[in-house]
Amino acid sequence: MTTVSIIGSGNMGSVIGDIVTAGGNTVEYIGRDTSEAITGDIVVLAVPHPALDEIVATRGAELAGKIVVDITNPLNFETFDSLVTPADGSKASELAKALPDSRVLKAFNTNFASTLAAKTVGGQPTTVLIAGDDVDAKNALAEVVRAGGVAAVDAGSLSRARELESVGFLQLTLAVQEKIGWTGGFAVAA
Amino acid sequence: MTTVSIIGSGNMGSVIGDIVTAGGNTVEYIGRDTSEAITGDIVVLAVPHPALDEIVATRGAELAGKIVVDITNPLNFETFDSLVTPADGSKASELAKALPDSRVLKAFNTNFASTLAAKTVGGQPTTVLIAGDDVDAKNALAEVVRAGGVAAVDAGSLSRARELESVGFLQLTLAVQEKIGWTGGFAVAA
Repeated sequence: MTTVSIIGSGNMGSVIGDIVTAGGNTVEYIGRDTSEAITGDIVVLAVPHPALDEIVATRGAELAGKIVVDITNPLNFETFDSLVTPADGSKASELAKALPDSRVLKAFNTNFASTLAAKTVGGQPTTVLIAGDDVDAKNALAEVVRAGGVAAVDAGSLSRARELESVGFLQLTLAVQEKIGWTGGFAVAA
Repeated sequence: MTTVSIIGSGNMGSVIGDIVTAGGNTVEYIGRDTSEAITGDIVVLAVPHPALDEIVATRGAELAGKIVVDITNPLNFETFDSLVTPADGSKASELAKALPDSRVLKAFNTNFASTLAAKTVGGQPTTVLIAGDDVDAKNALAEVVRAGGVAAVDAGSLSRARELESVGFLQLTLAVQEKIGWTGGFAVAA
């Protein structure tokens, strides 16, 4: 059994936690109290991108040795017209640099919360795209996701996080312009 | 009735031509003989990205005043691990700079040919995502696409071509690794 620690109390943390428990694994919600220990092997940072720096600062040492999952879409929330990351990089690759002793994955950022809850989008199984450089870490996360009834696909190395963040960005811009609904978005058809 | 000129004799040009005629519009296939005049108001450059430079060189003046549609996925075809465009740009924005008197759109690059032929992907209507700075041009292309039985969504300004090219890149990497099939890919769920 895998224990997944989730930092962040928003919709995404909640639905990801539900997937974990639906699969018979254990979820642990971690609040802002940094005296609370993180015991999970997989830690999902279910926070908006501006909150990552503080987590690195306050929890970085504790995240060493763990699988750390970045779910953020690093949009410029004022303009909704660009990403805040360097064009040739990604928030996940920045996080990996800041947490050199963790195995950082990008995942869940291309899924709207409601599609993770419904486990279906546009008639297809909701699919979590996972990018990362450590195959074992990707497999561990994919197992937890699949056990919870959601599809998972290895999207490649952590450098593909750039593309995953582009997908998430595009999907968000389509939703805020009401071109798609928050229960829709990109479905992955096999 | 709109005349759409298609440069390129591959699968994509063929299926896009079929959509045009299915909608009651006229298609004109343009070969390599540059003495053949381009008469369409919309010109689809259905060629691999390395062929765009030659089209600009030989046909650029003739494309002035026209809607020019870039469908390319500017992958490094040797590594399949990166795009050949500057990280903060796109092939479509480069093309727009090279053709300042044309209205350049990005479209079709997120659709596999077979999904354009089937008009469905993963049980959803196949959706052409269109990016460009000229709203009338986007509407003209969207009308032709929709008349042919395929959905179309305005994906934003030409700067969003960067994200469309990321989607196309990611989708291609998933297909070559057999994570998805060539009849599948990203479906757009409303």
